[in-house]
Amino acid sequence: MDIKGFQFAAVEAAIKKQGRKDLALIFSEAPATAVAVFTTNAVKAAPVLLSAERIKSCRAQAMVVNSGNANACTGEQGMRAARETSRQVAEGLGIPEEAVQVSSTGVIGVQLPMDRVRAAIPALVDGLNSGTLDDVAEAIMTTDTFPKMEARSGQAGGVTYTVAGIAKGAGMIMPNMATMLSFIITDAAVEAPALDRCFRRAVETSFNAITVDGDMSTNDTCLVMANGMAGNPAIAAGTPEALAFEALLQEVLLSLAQQIVKDGEGATKFVEIRVAGARSDADAKRAAMAIANSSLVKTAFFGQDANWGRIFAAVGSSGAEVDQTLLSLSFDAVCMAKNGIFAGGDAEALGTEALRKKEFTVSVGLGLGNGSATVYTSDLSHEYVSINADYRS
Amino acid sequence: MDIKGFQFAAVEAAIKKQGRKDLALIFSEAPATAVAVFTTNAVKAAPVLLSAERIKSCRAQAMVVNSGNANACTGEQGMRAARETSRQVAEGLGIPEEAVQVSSTGVIGVQLPMDRVRAAIPALVDGLNSGTLDDVAEAIMTTDTFPKMEARSGQAGGVTYTVAGIAKGAGMIMPNMATMLSFIITDAAVEAPALDRCFRRAVETSFNAITVDGDMSTNDTCLVMANGMAGNPAIAAGTPEALAFEALLQEVLLSLAQQIVKDGEGATKFVEIRVAGARSDADAKRAAMAIANSSLVKTAFFGQDANWGRIFAAVGSSGAEVDQTLLSLSFDAVCMAKNGIFAGGDAEALGTEALRKKEFTVSVGLGLGNGSATVYTSDLSHEYVSINADYRS
Repeated sequence: MDIKGFQFAAVEAAIKKQGRKDLALIFSEAPATAVAVFTTNAVKAAPVLLSAERIKSCRAQAMVVNSGNANACTGEQGMRAARETSRQVAEGLGIPEEAVQVSSTGVIGVQLPMDRVRAAIPALVDGLNSGTLDDVAEAIMTTDTFPKMEARSGQAGGVTYTVAGIAKGAGMIMPNMATMLSFIITDAAVEAPALDRCFRRAVETSFNAITVDGDMSTNDTCLVMANGMAGNPAIAAGTPEALAFEALLQEVLLSLAQQIVKDGEGATKFVEIRVAGARSDADAKRAAMAIANSSLVKTAFFGQDANWGRIFAAVGSSGAEVDQTLLSLSFDAVCMAKNGIFAGGDAEALGTEALRKKEFTVSVGLGLGNGSATVYTSDLSHEYVSINADYRS
Repeated sequence: MDIKGFQFAAVEAAIKKQGRKDLALIFSEAPATAVAVFTTNAVKAAPVLLSAERIKSCRAQAMVVNSGNANACTGEQGMRAARETSRQVAEGLGIPEEAVQVSSTGVIGVQLPMDRVRAAIPALVDGLNSGTLDDVAEAIMTTDTFPKMEARSGQAGGVTYTVAGIAKGAGMIMPNMATMLSFIITDAAVEAPALDRCFRRAVETSFNAITVDGDMSTNDTCLVMANGMAGNPAIAAGTPEALAFEALLQEVLLSLAQQIVKDGEGATKFVEIRVAGARSDADAKRAAMAIANSSLVKTAFFGQDANWGRIFAAVGSSGAEVDQTLLSLSFDAVCMAKNGIFAGGDAEALGTEALRKKEFTVSVGLGLGNGSATVYTSDLSHEYVSINADYRS
């Protein structure tokens, strides 16, 4: 990956456990255009409150992130900890404090051990010469079983640029960004309005189209920094270059989002849920999310049980406009039901066969209009329960 | 239980499995005043469509119910099956077809085996002399592990009357009546408007205040029949007798609702969730239900983990108005957090102790107003996953 003007570092600050890197830094050699989206949860972590305020300037030059502690539900002390972290990093880098974004993930309600964070920051800043984006991707993992990375290259004005991203997820993933951190960097020059528009649209069909358990965290953050060091003419909103950039960005985000679902806590299945024929796209997404969040549907996926009736029940409870006599459903290419009733024939056997695969698609037709949506989810397994019953201990 | 003028029967129709009663009948010797509430799912079972239409008259004299098959997502054939069942029962009883309510529970999307139902109805009607309400409670069980019954007696105009009820639940229980059947009978004379008002209010604080997994079924039905055979002067709306009747009804319904939660699929904990200090009662219920439906919160209950931060995260994502600096939380009498942060001291050890009990209360204060709500839920265990991964097989 050739991405110009970014440096990386990760160190072990022993924030929660010994023996793993848990404090990481991304630094752009030049001030970058930056936008971000944060959790919509009314309970927001201290670093979210701080970073959301700072990003209004559409500028950032560094992102410091820790795992092992969410710094959420920590009150004034938590806010001071987030500010102090960013101040120390800014001093080490010789940049304004306001150019530092701060992010945290881990257990809620415990104060950040600032003595250890403070002690680790000098080595973190010094490590920028030798670190990689992979190091950061590993340092932000919590219950993740593998680091999540993606990169793509494109061209603008004859200049090649790269978009790279990392993410962490695992449990608590749902629409509107739940315990999920993702940091996207690009050396493309992109004007702030273009970056904002491209980014928000790409988030909508990627991170906001996945769900593992329907829960929403206090810490979700997705940030993009564009430092312009590729040297292309700055991409402006509404141009063909902006469309191409958005497509590239969407590919990176969708790949990261899908990696998150595949690494969903205890996931044994990766399921693409497509809803078509809805009265509106919003209705389609409502129905798709209701399916993706239904515990009954997800346990049936785990059990490889072609229980299409539970899926219709989820659609019916979604709030989307539904005429039950028009509903249809397929597992991959196997039509299980049409006109609201069982399709008959070999559907049961063939549908069960489809669900035995590790990845499959559920397609639901509402027969009412042209609205459609696609979301991605996992199953609900014994392992999910084990992980979450024991997570803190 | 002395309840006048009701007869009961249950037989084995072998609708799904051999060796258990799966077709039941409740018959009132006199036409009864009756009201009912049904699932709000847009996908409704055939018997729900039929019964909802008939109950508009506020009259019923019999309820026929089968387990083992939901008769949902079964189209026109399913409607014919529900109608034929009611017609045959009506003929056997010598009452109008419209006076028969029909209900089904079980697997979705499979046609009812009408040959077996047809063959079983004569014995069902004949059995009315010898059956009990207990027999009906057992016949409607699906994944329930025990039958659910409750009865209370009261007085109106110097006359003693009784309210008795049965229910089935287990999985798929959530607000607005999800896979749950409940049939309430009383020999009190109650005018239709009074019965309707008392019943709907009692449902709101009982069946609509419980949740096991947040799913909503296609078949939920809660019906009350008042046949007047106790001989009291008919209870009219807005009278002290109506208030007393409503209190009694609420006790019966709440007991049944709590039995359903205690028998929630795989439940090892019974949790009462109280939210106070909300801007409105509706906000309080929204917050309480968000807690009760959070997979992360429920797995923490299963793990006996005093993870109050997950509860705050659920409250924050509920849509209720929240100021995170005002939030407080207790497990039983142990204050875990106040002003949005950890309460300190022995809270962790004492809170964990509270969660080790089979039943405990979670109290959340929002600090904003006078709105309050109480809901009941269970934990999310390995057993839940096992039951629902295998339910159809």
